[in-house]
Amino acid sequence: MLQVRDGRLQVLLWQRAQAPDLHLWSLPGGRLATDEDVATSIRRQLAEKVDVRQLSHVEQLAVFSAPARVPGARLIATAFLGLVPADVDPVIPADTRWCAVDDLPETAFDHEEIVLAARERLSAKLSYTNLGFALAPAEFTVSELRGIYSAALGYQVAATNLQRVLSRRGVLEPTGRTMPAGPSGGRPPALFRFTSRDLQVTDPFAVFRPPN
Amino acid sequence: MLQVRDGRLQVLLWQRAQAPDLHLWSLPGGRLATDEDVATSIRRQLAEKVDVRQLSHVEQLAVFSAPARVPGARLIATAFLGLVPADVDPVIPADTRWCAVDDLPETAFDHEEIVLAARERLSAKLSYTNLGFALAPAEFTVSELRGIYSAALGYQVAATNLQRVLSRRGVLEPTGRTMPAGPSGGRPPALFRFTSRDLQVTDPFAVFRPPN
Repeated sequence: MLQVRDGRLQVLLWQRAQAPDLHLWSLPGGRLATDEDVATSIRRQLAEKVDVRQLSHVEQLAVFSAPARVPGARLIATAFLGLVPADVDPVIPADTRWCAVDDLPETAFDHEEIVLAARERLSAKLSYTNLGFALAPAEFTVSELRGIYSAALGYQVAATNLQRVLSRRGVLEPTGRTMPAGPSGGRPPALFRFTSRDLQVTDPFAVFRPPN
Repeated sequence: MLQVRDGRLQVLLWQRAQAPDLHLWSLPGGRLATDEDVATSIRRQLAEKVDVRQLSHVEQLAVFSAPARVPGARLIATAFLGLVPADVDPVIPADTRWCAVDDLPETAFDHEEIVLAARERLSAKLSYTNLGFALAPAEFTVSELRGIYSAALGYQVAATNLQRVLSRRGVLEPTGRTMPAGPSGGRPPALFRFTSRDLQVTDPFAVFRPPN
């Protein structure tokens, strides 16, 4: 579960209370029950940690299956990527913590590898889809959105470029409203929103299609 | 394993010789061995059917985990998408057959669902990556490439559009050579190649980056 918090991309981890890997930090998850598929299972596992209605996007990430990835009986993990908008602050259990992805604590098993794969998937999808909707609040200034993209991508994005590219792709639109004016005066910045909150590939594949 | 053959997107299936689902058509695969991860396993399974060096691309597709997807003891499948270039004709065992994806025979278990998920992934990746390299021969005319994209996507693509878009993205380049002139005379068509045969997202994400 990833979220941009305090200007950084963070992941929700919980501290293990028993061996193996006692006290190390772990991704939420657990065993697949006999009557559920992996998508149902991850929803159930996450619901033990947070209000899952606060997740704006969940997708299968990958299978992690190295023979010795956990000690003891073999365990194969199907990892999921979940996203939470920047303006939500989920209530989390005492044994969990948001951790900066670029400064992880010591993680259990192969969970660092899984977190880094999630970051890579997120970064790629920000480039060719409208997935920014899942990290952003419902309405935001271009400056706020720039902060979110920069944190998620790990490098500074130019605000004008971001606005131009996302607008040209039809992903971003002005709400017609502005931020309340601050104490410093000056022109209040315009508020924007994503045109859709369903995942869409924004690359202009339509150019391959003949005109309707 | 998908390939464009005879102008259609086709999948390699094998006919089951025992129950359950006797005589139905099935994707190549099998049990994960104790000393291998899923990527090693799928290479081993495929090698029992074809010369895997003929595969131009292999990637994890998704986990299929519905509780009753196969009868008997629970089985969870990690599905892979493999691609073969159009100019290769792999030697295949007698119990296997290339089947048109849009006209599948009766398939075993949930394998039709898996094949359709593979087609969807392929179609999406043709739009935002250079994945066409994995379906095309090393060199081809725009007309040949148009046939391959049209088959993989399931609708007719305009040759001029395809050439323009892929060239603009830096994915396609002329080889400087032309097809040998045919008996009808006329100007022989130019030969093209993909600039890279490694998977790359071609959407201009670079616009988000500050200039170097």
